Amino acid sequence: MSNFVFTCGDVNGIGPEIVLKTLNHLTQIKNSDQYYFICPSNIFSSVSKKIIPRFDYSIVDSKSVLSKSRVNIIFLPGCKRITGKPTKDSGKTSYEALRLSYQLLKNNIFHAVITAPVSKTALHLAGINFPGQTEMFAKWSKTKNYLMVFLSKKINISLNSIHIPLRKVSSSLNQKQLLISLNVLVKTIKVDLGKSKPKIAVLGLNPHAGESGIIGEEENKVIIPVIKKLSNKIEIEGPFSPDAYFANRVFKNFDMTFAMYHDQALIPFKYINFGKGVNFTAGLPVVRTSPDHGVAYDIAGDFIADESSMLEAFKYAKRIVNNRKNEKAG
Amino acid sequence: MSNFVFTCGDVNGIGPEIVLKTLNHLTQIKNSDQYYFICPSNIFSSVSKKIIPRFDYSIVDSKSVLSKSRVNIIFLPGCKRITGKPTKDSGKTSYEALRLSYQLLKNNIFHAVITAPVSKTALHLAGINFPGQTEMFAKWSKTKNYLMVFLSKKINISLNSIHIPLRKVSSSLNQKQLLISLNVLVKTIKVDLGKSKPKIAVLGLNPHAGESGIIGEEENKVIIPVIKKLSNKIEIEGPFSPDAYFANRVFKNFDMTFAMYHDQALIPFKYINFGKGVNFTAGLPVVRTSPDHGVAYDIAGDFIADESSMLEAFKYAKRIVNNRKNEKAG
Repeated sequence: MSNFVFTCGDVNGIGPEIVLKTLNHLTQIKNSDQYYFICPSNIFSSVSKKIIPRFDYSIVDSKSVLSKSRVNIIFLPGCKRITGKPTKDSGKTSYEALRLSYQLLKNNIFHAVITAPVSKTALHLAGINFPGQTEMFAKWSKTKNYLMVFLSKKINISLNSIHIPLRKVSSSLNQKQLLISLNVLVKTIKVDLGKSKPKIAVLGLNPHAGESGIIGEEENKVIIPVIKKLSNKIEIEGPFSPDAYFANRVFKNFDMTFAMYHDQALIPFKYINFGKGVNFTAGLPVVRTSPDHGVAYDIAGDFIADESSMLEAFKYAKRIVNNRKNEKAG
Repeated sequence: MSNFVFTCGDVNGIGPEIVLKTLNHLTQIKNSDQYYFICPSNIFSSVSKKIIPRFDYSIVDSKSVLSKSRVNIIFLPGCKRITGKPTKDSGKTSYEALRLSYQLLKNNIFHAVITAPVSKTALHLAGINFPGQTEMFAKWSKTKNYLMVFLSKKINISLNSIHIPLRKVSSSLNQKQLLISLNVLVKTIKVDLGKSKPKIAVLGLNPHAGESGIIGEEENKVIIPVIKKLSNKIEIEGPFSPDAYFANRVFKNFDMTFAMYHDQALIPFKYINFGKGVNFTAGLPVVRTSPDHGVAYDIAGDFIADESSMLEAFKYAKRIVNNRKNEKAG
């Protein structure tokens, strides 16, 4: 039996809608899992008029959440909803939901959090200067070495740098940091994904992976030496020429593709999965997954959002929780 | 009636094989086009034993190539073949084929060149320091403002920087240069692709297209002002968040996607087209296309290479030649 908490995300987007749709699926399956949903009371009330809950639920207080109900709603203070727009209020609320989820995870009340998408612009308006949710959980849990990992049936991909400007990608890359990231990755593949012999492919940074040093030096100076160091311990190959790697579907031969920067990973991952992939933060003491799409302001309030990615995010969270339990038990 | 020349590319790769396979297709179609193939004599001889020509041909001298034959071979000096490896000799020969093709194009003997893939490593071994074929044709024709454009049925994409290290991408981007590139692009869509009202999508440089300046400033300082300047004259939109743009297939609404750097364009283009796209150099006085794949050393000499991309490259070259003729006539 595990406890999972969902955060509402940006309430002016599709977050509350896709959480309710996901809970409607999960509660049709018989098991002893419990689900918690952190959401402002007025938002829960209005969205549940459109997405009718197919389950009973309790309303629990954030200070004493323990409950016997299958589904439990933790109300946040009301938040003015302006559908389809980032606001100071929506930014603040999305942050408070995350903050509360972390506190409860830290106290071992929940086993995993599945976070609905937030708007960085709304967070910014509320004076919250985190580049993303990944970085929030890392900071709160004092985790220095963490990774964004994207999971799906077709391809798993992780990335060495996250929400930084492209011009800073090269200077942020060095042997020490790359080695740390890859060690986090190896551990997460073994423990969280349950694959005892990880096969990892590393992409180059430059066009054609530097073409033997003709187009950039990072492959020769940083990436290749690190791959050599690790290749005694694990199956690791690269650096691959990024365009040819995806064109030839080389990722099918590996458990994990390791990319050097955000769009090198996310352009192919999201294209291949059509917005149905899962974002997982590796290296944290807590388990956190989320859909790989954004707040979708353009369809917010239309109640036509597809909850597949949210549902997948839940499934991966549950799998990772179980794998971590097995690891501890073993 | 038009004259097309094919270059052999790197003879240790699949170049000569895919040219012969392409000529076998083209010569089955009745029309008055003529085809020329620049290739070392020994390579032509050995490859044509495996890929049997289904056509008659003449052997012509590079100094007086004019011929009445449908297919004409221009022999280069013999080149030692070491299948599957870049050599000084293969680099030198691939360069000589290109150089000769340009001289004959310049003298209006050919209407277009379709170039088989070269190895930058082999060129380097031969002391030829061009980052790619695109840059060679640009230099020879004294073209300052040119663009790499990738063409296919599913997506057309062009890129603002080509074979430069990733760390130099941001500093190479400025308003003046971006405006020049987009003007070259507009002209090539109108004249070469024959679309009188181009619809162009521009991608951001940074993750999430900078997220309103939170992740990088190039969108606000360079890209958005240039889009505004051009939007009086043409249909141009952006900057789009690159990962969401491809995930949501937004490119289907545009004639052309304009990317900021090599892998941002080539990762999705090659994935979507599975190595069957076409590379076209826009802005040149001459017409040059090529397949979007490389030398494929891994399958060189096995004679199992797929000529689809070479054939597509020919079809686009022919279309562009005709569009340029119509433009002049009109």
